[in-house]
Amino acid sequence: MEVKSFIGVDDAIRKITKYGPRRKGRKFPVLDSVGRYSFQDILSDQDFPPFDRSAVDGYALNSDETISSSKNNPSRFKLSGKVFPSSKDSIEVRKGEAVAVTTGARIPRGADSVVMLEDTSEKDGEIEVFVPLRKFQNVSRKGEDLKKGFQILRKGEKIYPPHVAALLECGIEDVQVISFSIGIISTGDEVVSGEVRNSTQPMLHSFFQRKGFDAVSRNSVGDDEREIEKALDSSKEDVIVVTGGTGPGERDVMPSVIEENGKMIFRGLKMRPGRTTSFGIYKGKPVFMVSGLPVAALIASENVILPVIRNWLGIPEDDEEIRSGILGRSLVNTLGFRSYVRVRTERKGKKTFVYPTRVTGSGVIYSVIGADGLLVMDESSEGIGEGESVNYRVLRW
Amino acid sequence: MEVKSFIGVDDAIRKITKYGPRRKGRKFPVLDSVGRYSFQDILSDQDFPPFDRSAVDGYALNSDETISSSKNNPSRFKLSGKVFPSSKDSIEVRKGEAVAVTTGARIPRGADSVVMLEDTSEKDGEIEVFVPLRKFQNVSRKGEDLKKGFQILRKGEKIYPPHVAALLECGIEDVQVISFSIGIISTGDEVVSGEVRNSTQPMLHSFFQRKGFDAVSRNSVGDDEREIEKALDSSKEDVIVVTGGTGPGERDVMPSVIEENGKMIFRGLKMRPGRTTSFGIYKGKPVFMVSGLPVAALIASENVILPVIRNWLGIPEDDEEIRSGILGRSLVNTLGFRSYVRVRTERKGKKTFVYPTRVTGSGVIYSVIGADGLLVMDESSEGIGEGESVNYRVLRW
Repeated sequence: MEVKSFIGVDDAIRKITKYGPRRKGRKFPVLDSVGRYSFQDILSDQDFPPFDRSAVDGYALNSDETISSSKNNPSRFKLSGKVFPSSKDSIEVRKGEAVAVTTGARIPRGADSVVMLEDTSEKDGEIEVFVPLRKFQNVSRKGEDLKKGFQILRKGEKIYPPHVAALLECGIEDVQVISFSIGIISTGDEVVSGEVRNSTQPMLHSFFQRKGFDAVSRNSVGDDEREIEKALDSSKEDVIVVTGGTGPGERDVMPSVIEENGKMIFRGLKMRPGRTTSFGIYKGKPVFMVSGLPVAALIASENVILPVIRNWLGIPEDDEEIRSGILGRSLVNTLGFRSYVRVRTERKGKKTFVYPTRVTGSGVIYSVIGADGLLVMDESSEGIGEGESVNYRVLRW
Repeated sequence: MEVKSFIGVDDAIRKITKYGPRRKGRKFPVLDSVGRYSFQDILSDQDFPPFDRSAVDGYALNSDETISSSKNNPSRFKLSGKVFPSSKDSIEVRKGEAVAVTTGARIPRGADSVVMLEDTSEKDGEIEVFVPLRKFQNVSRKGEDLKKGFQILRKGEKIYPPHVAALLECGIEDVQVISFSIGIISTGDEVVSGEVRNSTQPMLHSFFQRKGFDAVSRNSVGDDEREIEKALDSSKEDVIVVTGGTGPGERDVMPSVIEENGKMIFRGLKMRPGRTTSFGIYKGKPVFMVSGLPVAALIASENVILPVIRNWLGIPEDDEEIRSGILGRSLVNTLGFRSYVRVRTERKGKKTFVYPTRVTGSGVIYSVIGADGLLVMDESSEGIGEGESVNYRVLRW
């Protein structure tokens, strides 16, 4: 693997785009769909509430009859009935009458507003009202929560708790979510022998799972072409992420396995960490290859694999938070490479200082745990001096 | 329930603080602990890597012997062996010798640096090195990933994918996480009868679950004191959230159930929406009461219940993102109340405009789905005029 064959990150993402697998959906109960992505546009098929209903506990009446009401000059009504949200019978409010209602109850015919309990007093079946009411005051109007045709979910949109309420209010109990699974295979004799602990695979598993996809951890395999082929063949997932086996050393067998059964699309990326990140097609299936070292694998997953998957599936990008601060220690960039520098920020008075937790070293997971931000130095940057103003992305896992 | 008995949000949170249940932990495999909160301080008990190892594929040698190396004047070494990460045997590099190493392999005794494969050429067991090396170049030093004693997790800290790698690298396979469960009970004859769909309970369930707690949805019960008591008695969770049954209407039986078996701590909050939010102790167990209407329940859960639970459990607050913009439509506040206004933002040129999706109406779940921010008007505010600059919190579920 020659550095001069490496390609840039943006170029790589563009190249991979056309190899996306067929999009498909899978039905989930609404509650279990939270954190996943909708595979459907979902519109409300009805007005909600389906009728005018009381927004408070009080008395339904006709607002015209309260125009001059005040504490000293209350208007008076005859209490002619009671309605609860569960009431089925129809009742009518006539002139001079009021009907007791609780929150959520249907507004009786003839009434156009509800006076709150605390603005009234009741005695012997007569209600005194101390305030004037406007038309529809304290009334939840038909369709005010959800209008028929309102877009509850867009295809590709992430499903959050408020959607649960809206979907269920519309009587929708199942939703088609994007079905996308990622098989993760660790390679390396040193992983199989236990010489090196397999920490990268479970980390990537939880990373992709938290992003709303199905991750499946496959057994680790040694640096053996036949073993690796067997593992790739038995993976039923939509894409495979292989950790290890992509460096320039003689034992790095992944690229040859791919070439024998498909095609390497690129080998090596101009990014730090993550320069061994590669991509190929194995028997028609997309395969990402990342470093076996945790930070390189994580940075590649977040900044290359995830954007590609989103693009394949039509999922909009996350709304990232960008903050700025003053660089506390100078940084050097390898010209032509894009560097992802983990930073820790410190407030000093009104200023925020930004310290790299570590610049090089792709295995240094501590550089991520200690970090609260990611500073990206572009390919054209030669570095950034101490004291310069920088932007960084807030890390949210 | 008289408005004048309502208390302020901050006051309420202070009052509830002392009723926290006993903190306890529960063991989880590392991978399943992601998204939960650590119940332990966890320090690395070893250096990682445990020895100096190669960061690249190449040849281990003594850097002193490469001082004047260049493309035209390469230094030459005899290839005396090969080391892999899985190699167990000890090998020594003598003067004039180099040992082939792959990424992760232990640096052999006598060598202090590794030259990358691409900066060399091999022929007949002889290596030509084209570049000078620094001491420890391309070597991952003992302890550079994790120093013994490095704090991987703090008690109360949320566990994220990078922690998975760090814990496993240290050989830690289980972690004590904060054990905290929330029982959710819906009340209301209209819910039991199906007249009103029970959308609030599943929404709160997914809300608390996503925040890293165990949510348990209990059967819905009608507005009947004995039924409610039975439901409360059968809930084994650490706290209970009851939806519905807290308004000022005559059928609101929750407060009397609590008073008969414990104590109401407050009834009604000066917040909008969510003014019926209440809290009490039932047979020694904390019980939150929130509106049955989804938005009021959600705003109360996020802005009252969640901060209280975090405080009880020693979990630091989320790092919220505050943005600013120009208010696109004037807002009126009820003096003495704190209003949580759902807003949608729109970029127009360089300016961000902030539009309330809806000011009143606690049932209006559409006001949350359409929103990307939450604007809080404090108790002392009388309102904010159109065109004024405002801050809002970015909504992240």
